[in-house]
This record gives sequence, structure tokens and C-alpha cells, in this order.
Amino acid sequence: MLSLFKYNWQVREDWFTWCESLPEEEFHIERVGGMKSIRETLTHILDCELLWLNSLVDEKVVFERRQLLTQLNEIKEYSTFVQSFTEQFIEQLPSDYENNIIEVQRRDGSILEFTQKKIFAHMITHEIHHIGQLSVWAREIQRKPISSDLIIRIFE
Amino acid sequence: MLSLFKYNWQVREDWFTWCESLPEEEFHIERVGGMKSIRETLTHILDCELLWLNSLVDEKVVFERRQLLTQLNEIKEYSTFVQSFTEQFIEQLPSDYENNIIEVQRRDGSILEFTQKKIFAHMITHEIHHIGQLSVWAREIQRKPISSDLIIRIFE
Repeated sequence: MLSLFKYNWQVREDWFTWCESLPEEEFHIERVGGMKSIRETLTHILDCELLWLNSLVDEKVVFERRQLLTQLNEIKEYSTFVQSFTEQFIEQLPSDYENNIIEVQRRDGSILEFTQKKIFAHMITHEIHHIGQLSVWAREIQRKPISSDLIIRIFE
Repeated sequence: MLSLFKYNWQVREDWFTWCESLPEEEFHIERVGGMKSIRETLTHILDCELLWLNSLVDEKVVFERRQLLTQLNEIKEYSTFVQSFTEQFIEQLPSDYENNIIEVQRRDGSILEFTQKKIFAHMITHEIHHIGQLSVWAREIQRKPISSDLIIRIFE
């Protein structure tokens, strides 16, 4: 299942390249659904990857410029930062990680428990879901979306 | 990874229930992106699950009424049929299935080779991607979409 991170990073990178050819206002403009813009949806994907990875580690990492992100280039830097963190983490996983129980504290102080496998499954499916939203917006502005078809991709 | 089929089937069932509360024309109306309507996007998800499962078996199954599908109820019957086929198939998989090489013949007669693991990964991510599209359309008609968040779901 962890190879699906690689699939997601490849699709994400293709969307970044796709955004480069977009008139800048289309990147920022408010839309219906998702996180309301291409910019915010891509940023949200990264926020969630980082949030969940941080739930799995003792030494949490912070992207110092997180509150200052507005431009595509800055979001790409954020992606490089988050991806590098996730890559390092999954490369050193022990073979029996799947059923490890992770405690996650909610804002109200209560604790939820998830298996490490479930957290990874959520991180992966969360990104694919939001990328599906970008594909509708692409068609709305008469642009061909990035193909998400995993079967045509080489990523292992 | 195979547990993600269960996640998808649960989300799909929730979308079917969501569609029941929708004015019928909203189910059929042509939209931008995806497979151009809620009806056709749900049908496409099922077509693809069946197509890829059939690439893995000697005795292919056919849903006799496939060409006659127009109504939500009929698509739900198609989903029950496809899900049952997939469930039976994944329940009897040998433990070493992942790297089995599957030959898939394209329309032009050429043969592509994929691991069985890759085909399953494609089937799963394909559905999540298209469900993301439905969520944008839901907001376009001022309806709250089904949550796709895996972390809040219990499916194992």
C-alpha cells in the first residue's frame, strides 16, 4: 500500500507542472467544492499529509513558511518538504508497523486510536479524492486534466 | 490494500443513498468533467471494476442488463452484482498473488503486462478519483457531499 504514496507524489508533481501553464488567476480563483480553489486544495493535501505524519512521530516537523504560502512556487517548496519527511519516515518503518496503535488527540482533548495502517490508508485516499476534484475544475476551464490512471504509470 | 475495496463499497453505498434524496433530473443531467453525469460516473466506476476483475479470471462474468441501465435502482443492482464478484474473487486469493503477472489484451491486439497488485491498486484509486468528482458536483447543486474521509469509517 505504501507504494501509493509514490503514485500520489507523481500525480501531484504533474498537477504542479499543469498549474505552471495556467493563467495565474485560475490558480487562485474561488470555485465551488473541494477547498474552494486549486491553490487551497493543493495546500490542503500537503497540510493533511504533514498533520498525519506528525501524529506518527515524536519530533514533529513544521514548515516555517506555512502561513505565508500564496504562490505556486511556494506550495511546490512545501510539497518537497512534506514529501521528504514522509519518504524518510516510510523508508525506516519496521515490518510490523501495520497494527501499531496510534493515539491522536483531538482539539477537545479527547483521544482517538487508529492503526498505523489506517492512518496511511487515509493519507493516501484523501489525496486521491481531492485530486479528483481538480479534474472537474480543469474541465470547467476547458483544460485537459492530468490523468490519474494508476495503471498507465510507472512508479515502483 | 484489499481492505480499500471495502472502504470504496461503503462510500459508494452512501452515495447511492444520497442519490435517492436527489431530484431525479439531477441524477441524469449533463455536467462538466468526470463521465459527464452522476449516473454515468457511477456506472463507469462499476464498468471499470468489472472490466479489471474480468482481466484476472478465466470465466468472465457479464451483467446481462448492462446496456439497459438508466435508473438508480438498476445501477444499484449492477453494483451488487459487481461487488459480489469482486468479493468472491479477493476472498479466495492465494497469499502470493501480488506479483502474479497478468496479461491484458488491448483493443489493437497488443498485450500489456501488469502485476495483480497493480491492477487492484488501479481499481481502488480509480473509484476514489471519480468519487472526488461527485463531491464537486454535489456542492454545485448546494448539497453536502458524502464524506470520503477514510479515517472516520469503520470497514474492517
